[in-house]
Amino acid sequence: MLLARIEGNVVATRKHPSFEGWRLVICQPISSAGEPEGTPQIAIDSHGAGMHQRVVISSDGSAARTAVGDPKSPARWIVIGVVDEKEPGIPV
Amino acid sequence: MLLARIEGNVVATRKHPSFEGWRLVICQPISSAGEPEGTPQIAIDSHGAGMHQRVVISSDGSAARTAVGDPKSPARWIVIGVVDEKEPGIPV
Amino acid sequence: MLLARIEGNVVATRKHPSFEGWRLVICQPISSAGEPEGTPQIAIDSHGAGMHQRVVISSDGSAARTAVGDPKSPARWIVIGVVDEKEPGIPV
Amino acid sequence: MLLARIEGNVVATRKHPSFEGWRLVICQPISSAGEPEGTPQIAIDSHGAGMHQRVVISSDGSAARTAVGDPKSPARWIVIGVVDEKEPGIPV
Amino acid sequence: MLLARIEGNVVATRKHPSFEGWRLVICQPISSAGEPEGTPQIAIDSHGAGMHQRVVISSDGSAARTAVGDPKSPARWIVIGVVDEKEPGIPV
Repeated sequence: MLLARIEGNVVATRKHPSFEGWRLVICQPISSAGEPEGTPQIAIDSHGAGMHQRVVISSDGSAARTAVGDPKSPARWIVIGVVDEKEPGIPV
Repeated sequence: MLLARIEGNVVATRKHPSFEGWRLVICQPISSAGEPEGTPQIAIDSHGAGMHQRVVISSDGSAARTAVGDPKSPARWIVIGVVDEKEPGIPV
Repeated sequence: MLLARIEGNVVATRKHPSFEGWRLVICQPISSAGEPEGTPQIAIDSHGAGMHQRVVISSDGSAARTAVGDPKSPARWIVIGVVDEKEPGIPV
Repeated sequence: MLLARIEGNVVATRKHPSFEGWRLVICQPISSAGEPEGTPQIAIDSHGAGMHQRVVISSDGSAARTAVGDPKSPARWIVIGVVDEKEPGIPV
Repeated sequence: MLLARIEGNVVATRKHPSFEGWRLVICQPISSAGEPEGTPQIAIDSHGAGMHQRVVISSDGSAARTAVGDPKSPARWIVIGVVDEKEPGIPV
């Protein structure tokens, strides 16, 4: 599970049918200080995370397949929470 | 799931039989700004993605095995969508 | 499994229901010499690890799902041990 | 799945019994231009790939376990194809 | 599976019960030339690998769980072989 910042959306007309109707967001992993760390991941999002918001993402494939409702979906990364602003412990 | 750019094909005569008839493409992961990020991945492609096109790839092994129709295939990465040009949110 | 140092907490009001009541910690992977190595991971913690303490974390999804008691949870990383101070073999 | 170059063999007398009789090769992941990319992986090889040959490797554990014929083997990476020289699309 | 060098032990009194009685070693992944590559991993070891010895480690969770004898253990990385000194193909 990674702390990440939303950096955009991906729109794909030709795609696996299990992604129909799902929002795909570009998530840049970040450190606790907010610095970019490693390769951006594409995740499905049902929390309505906004541009530049911080989120927690998970690579758990079985949970992602459950979310889209298709046990054969290639979905893998999923937004599992939107980080509250001004929480203690990490800088905003 | 990664945003990536198609950088070539791989041709292998000696290979696992489950890959027979499948196109194998070299996918360079990229950032939302289009910069290369991390190690290129080899993926199977059924969407006919063209050279230098942007795609979304997934490491979901069970979906890749379903795609090639062999539950014992070592297939792992698969092209799951071709990114539309000029979509909002990421630069083209 | 990675050696890591606790660097903060994550608070998320909008989140997957399986994380309700669980502490989410930011874990910076470190080398045996204590230097940061790679991308921080978010893990669930039931050991009460303190700020800056060294821990061992694991990416085993099935164990994390067992811990939170929800077989469909997207939980993946989990704190599996708190490293003793002054043990032989690694510098403190 | 990664494009890689064979860089050596590993010989281990003390090892998990499922590897008995299997060749273990050191595989350096490479870019489409042939540059080294990321950490070398140890893979089992049944294709007889030669020193410095380019191969495709996969991290699919279930396929690796099927290959060695032991459902409890810790085998994970496997050579799934030997890249033809002079194929179109990637430089030789 | 990675080629790695043993760099120390981890001692943790507060830990998941499935690790009781198991040795946890810090494994620095290395290249075929012996250079450090990427983040150190914590692995369980039943081969008695010594300090600075070269080993092969695997991230196969099901094999690690089998090794510790607990199907719900979060164990993931395991030492699967101790590399012989002076084998052909890689420098000593």
